[in-house]
Amino acid sequence: MGPIGLIDGRIVADLSEKLVEMEDRGYQFGDGVYEVTPVFNGRCFGLQRHMERLFRSLREMRITVGYSAEDLYGYHERLIQESGIVDAGIYLQITRGFAPRNHNFPDNAAPRLTMTVRPIPPSLLQYIETGAEAIVVPDLRWLRCDIKSLNLLGNVFAKEQAKEAGVFEAIQVRDGAVTEGSSTNFFAVKDGVLRTHPLSNLILQGVTRTIVVDELAPKLGLKVVEEPFGVDFATNADEAFVTGSLCNVTPITGLDGRPVGDGRIGPVTRQLVEAFTALVGQACPKG
Amino acid sequence: MGPIGLIDGRIVADLSEKLVEMEDRGYQFGDGVYEVTPVFNGRCFGLQRHMERLFRSLREMRITVGYSAEDLYGYHERLIQESGIVDAGIYLQITRGFAPRNHNFPDNAAPRLTMTVRPIPPSLLQYIETGAEAIVVPDLRWLRCDIKSLNLLGNVFAKEQAKEAGVFEAIQVRDGAVTEGSSTNFFAVKDGVLRTHPLSNLILQGVTRTIVVDELAPKLGLKVVEEPFGVDFATNADEAFVTGSLCNVTPITGLDGRPVGDGRIGPVTRQLVEAFTALVGQACPKG
Repeated sequence: MGPIGLIDGRIVADLSEKLVEMEDRGYQFGDGVYEVTPVFNGRCFGLQRHMERLFRSLREMRITVGYSAEDLYGYHERLIQESGIVDAGIYLQITRGFAPRNHNFPDNAAPRLTMTVRPIPPSLLQYIETGAEAIVVPDLRWLRCDIKSLNLLGNVFAKEQAKEAGVFEAIQVRDGAVTEGSSTNFFAVKDGVLRTHPLSNLILQGVTRTIVVDELAPKLGLKVVEEPFGVDFATNADEAFVTGSLCNVTPITGLDGRPVGDGRIGPVTRQLVEAFTALVGQACPKG
Repeated sequence: MGPIGLIDGRIVADLSEKLVEMEDRGYQFGDGVYEVTPVFNGRCFGLQRHMERLFRSLREMRITVGYSAEDLYGYHERLIQESGIVDAGIYLQITRGFAPRNHNFPDNAAPRLTMTVRPIPPSLLQYIETGAEAIVVPDLRWLRCDIKSLNLLGNVFAKEQAKEAGVFEAIQVRDGAVTEGSSTNFFAVKDGVLRTHPLSNLILQGVTRTIVVDELAPKLGLKVVEEPFGVDFATNADEAFVTGSLCNVTPITGLDGRPVGDGRIGPVTRQLVEAFTALVGQACPKG
C-alpha cells in the first residue's frame, strides 16, 4: 500500500525511477500546472471540479493536451485500484514538456503528465478535529495565483516558516490584505458572517472554498462576504478556518500566537466541518 | 558540436535521456536555482561571479550542496572540452533533490546538479550590433527576484509577449517602476547619465549589470544613478540598453513601438558595447 505513480498513462511502481529529461520545462521553468484530488473510502471527491480547474489552468498557460477529462478520471481510478490506498491524495501535474531551454514556448514539445497517489497525512485529519494554529507571513508570490502552477517557492517558503514556528499553516498577507494560506483558502467568521478574499489573480479558487461558499453556507443560512480584510480583522474575528482539498475545513484557533475568538473551535466552524464531513460521506460512502 | 549535458558529475551525451525522478523538487515546486555562464573563444567569461551568485542563491534557498566552486569550474571546463563548442552558454541548475511531495523542505534529499552547454543563439550576437526593440509588460513575478530561482513563469510569459510582438525583449514594470527585462537588466541613458533600478528584492543582480556599473562606467567617466524610474522616463531617454550574460550590452532602440531617443544606437551605449567587447577580448582571447 505504498505510494505509486503514473507517467503519460503508464503505471510507475517505483517512484525513484528516472522518468524525466533535464530539459523538461517543468524542471527548468516550473512550466506546468497541477491538481491534488482527495480520495475517501476509495472514491475521488470533487474530481470533476479539480479536472475543470486543471483545464482552466492549462488554458491560461496555453498548454494544449491530448487528454480528455475522461482519460484523467480513468487514471485516477487506476491509481486507486493499483495502489489499494483508500484515503489518499492523488497528485497530477502536466508540464509543457521537453524542449531545448529557451524562455519562449516551444513549438513541438509534448506535454508530460505525471501522477502519484499516497495516503493522506494523519496529521491533516487530526487538525480537522482539534483545530490548528497558523502564523501570518508576507505574500511573496507572483500575480497569477489563480493559476495552479508549479511556481511554488513562495508557498514553500511560507509553509517552511509555519513549520519552524511549530504551527500548521502560514496565512499570507499582501498590501495589508489577507489573501490565503500556503496551500489553503482562509476564512474569518465575525458575527455569524463568513469573510474571505474575493476571487482574483491573487488567490486560487479552491475547490473546498467553492463548496463552502456556494453550497454549505447557503444551506446553513450563513452569509458570505467576499471582500479583502486585514490581519487585525482576522485576529479579532470570532472564529477562523482554512479550506483545502486534503484538510477539508480545518479550524484555525490561533494566529501568530494569539487566540482567534476564545481560542476554541467556534459553532459556525463546527457546523461547516460537520456539513462538509456529511457531504464527503454522501459522495464517498464506506464500503 | 551539438549540445550535451552533465548530471551530478557525469557527462550526458544525449539530452533526451531520462535522468530525473518525477518527485524531484525542481520538477514539482521549481525548487532550485540556476546560472547561465557565457563561453567566448572556448573560455568562460565571469565564471567566478556566476558561481558566487549561485552560492548566494543556494544560501537564500537554504540548499546545502557538497560541491565547491572549484568542482563547478571543473564541470564547466569539461563541458567545453567534451562539446567542442567555443561560443556557448553553459546552463547550470541545482535543485533541492528527490523527496516525497510536501511543501516543507525535506530532511534528507540530495541536491541535484544538471548542466547543459549549447551555442549562443546567433540572433543575440546580431542584436548587439544592430540594436533591438522591446515592449513594456507588467511585472508578474514574485518578490524574491534577487534569487535566481527556477520559478520563471513570470519571465516566460513576458518573453512570450515579446515574441508575439515581434521584438527581442519585454521590459517589466511594477508599481510604475521599470524593474528589468525578462532575462536582462535595463538601463536608460539621459544627459549622459546611466539610470537603472537599484538592487533590491525586485531585480536580479546581473553579472553584466555589475560589470557596467562598477567597472565600465567609472572607466568611461559615466555617472550611474541606481534609482527607480517609470516608463515615460525610459521612452523619453536619449538611449537605452539591456545587459545579460549572453547578450552582453544590447542597445534598445525602440520601446512599445516608439523610438528611444532618435531610434538609433546612441554614443554612450556604443561606448559601453565596445568597452564590454574589449573586456571579453582580454578575458577570452582568440586561439
